[in-house]
Amino acid sequence: MERKPLIGVIGSGECDEETERLAYEVGRKIAEAGYGLVCGGLGGVMEAACRGASEAGGLTVGILPSDSPNTANPFVGVAVATGMGIARNAIIIRSALAVIAIRGGPGTLSEVAFCLQLGVPIVSLKSFTLDPKIIQVQTSEEALKEVINRI
Amino acid sequence: MERKPLIGVIGSGECDEETERLAYEVGRKIAEAGYGLVCGGLGGVMEAACRGASEAGGLTVGILPSDSPNTANPFVGVAVATGMGIARNAIIIRSALAVIAIRGGPGTLSEVAFCLQLGVPIVSLKSFTLDPKIIQVQTSEEALKEVINRI
Amino acid sequence: MERKPLIGVIGSGECDEETERLAYEVGRKIAEAGYGLVCGGLGGVMEAACRGASEAGGLTVGILPSDSPNTANPFVGVAVATGMGIARNAIIIRSALAVIAIRGGPGTLSEVAFCLQLGVPIVSLKSFTLDPKIIQVQTSEEALKEVINRI
Amino acid sequence: MERKPLIGVIGSGECDEETERLAYEVGRKIAEAGYGLVCGGLGGVMEAACRGASEAGGLTVGILPSDSPNTANPFVGVAVATGMGIARNAIIIRSALAVIAIRGGPGTLSEVAFCLQLGVPIVSLKSFTLDPKIIQVQTSEEALKEVINRI
Repeated sequence: MERKPLIGVIGSGECDEETERLAYEVGRKIAEAGYGLVCGGLGGVMEAACRGASEAGGLTVGILPSDSPNTANPFVGVAVATGMGIARNAIIIRSALAVIAIRGGPGTLSEVAFCLQLGVPIVSLKSFTLDPKIIQVQTSEEALKEVINRI
Repeated sequence: MERKPLIGVIGSGECDEETERLAYEVGRKIAEAGYGLVCGGLGGVMEAACRGASEAGGLTVGILPSDSPNTANPFVGVAVATGMGIARNAIIIRSALAVIAIRGGPGTLSEVAFCLQLGVPIVSLKSFTLDPKIIQVQTSEEALKEVINRI
Repeated sequence: MERKPLIGVIGSGECDEETERLAYEVGRKIAEAGYGLVCGGLGGVMEAACRGASEAGGLTVGILPSDSPNTANPFVGVAVATGMGIARNAIIIRSALAVIAIRGGPGTLSEVAFCLQLGVPIVSLKSFTLDPKIIQVQTSEEALKEVINRI
Repeated sequence: MERKPLIGVIGSGECDEETERLAYEVGRKIAEAGYGLVCGGLGGVMEAACRGASEAGGLTVGILPSDSPNTANPFVGVAVATGMGIARNAIIIRSALAVIAIRGGPGTLSEVAFCLQLGVPIVSLKSFTLDPKIIQVQTSEEALKEVINRI
């Protein structure tokens, strides 16, 4: 097995349909571009992105807050059970070459902050805008293009 | 030894003189109000706040990113070496009853985000304003008043 | 991508040739039995096991102590950078359905201890014998047989 | 507040009366010798040691597995809530200059292993004997003497 470079996808564990569709597209495009997807392994944006990547035959990695692989969403191929709650957000960011944020709340914000702190390229798809280093995009196509440019 | 309730102080590892003065005042007032201070244990805002608390005879706890207690600033009384880098930010927030942010950059932002995610009261002293749950203040007096009101 | 159940392989980062051969066989057999392999992602036993699994077309997951995926051995397919040093040992054990220890030193011992504490089945291939719950075996064939029996 | 050098005390969360008495004595002697005590913050050996140190006017630090300071035993003066379960064992060891193990089970074993791996001096008071680097003692007096000799 060759090393899969991983792109991170971050966003809320619950989301509306439009956000879900965006996340699905992003996941699908990550797989089609030959990258693996790493995320927090739970529902909402994470599940939709994993479903997209999975349906395109891609690798999906879930870095879970809980202490059991069984808590991963059904489209996570590799479930890593950290048992360390939200501190696992730092592990997602460290393991990704670049990250796409899709909307999101405080959990996503902590991950955006870790990207800024660690110098990991971060693309915001209708997500946070609070720093000029965050690349703003409006579509999944743009998100992939910008993220791949920075890897 | 009776349990010391802890107030968190977050902010950058490097800061200008005005910020340092603010952090010193906040630390001093935390100790005078009978609370312990918990922070990241390094320089800048963290060191100034610890110095303030320490000079007022207070307890200061540093949750360090490194794997050695020796990396704490000289005003940390209890040095906890996590060896887990920036993921230690979650431990600072979990250990505090409430938190005061003093200016700050991306590291501080991740801590503010953890406060919002975990429901820990967070007061911003010239720091982030991005959520209505963050209580905005302009002086160290107000910061203490607001933080103690929420404990 | 369907969820891969993971078997853990633990052992030293440096080892002699016989141990390396054992680790290679164990890795190979894990992949041939349809399981993924999770380990600490570094050299010695970890690298030999990943090489075995990788050559048999299997999935290999490395839970790294460092903060960069680049520190993984060349046979790690999915590199998770925890940035938390030896505390990452707990994540390896939590992510595995069962674990095979191959010789090993203090790092391996901490992982064996976590298996005992968390109730994860642990097979010792010429490794620690200190608890009756540790299943003692002498060959890679026996190790796989015993580990799969307990999953 | 001057930095308190910390001595670690490790052992089970439940224990018999004799072990409790030993742990109490060890805690008391740590405080009388001018050191702070760091432990896992829960019951059994940890609570007895904290009680001893606390009654002698000493500093007690509890590095908790849970996400709330409220889970500490009543004799913990400084409660650090890691939210990372048993992986917090590594933090206890990193924060201590030297460690005393008092009997104990698998959790204690993981901490002994971390001592061996990190080179932290470890004294076994009727606890594990599996490595020549572990200093074997039979009384709390000897434990303190040996531990202080190695700091």
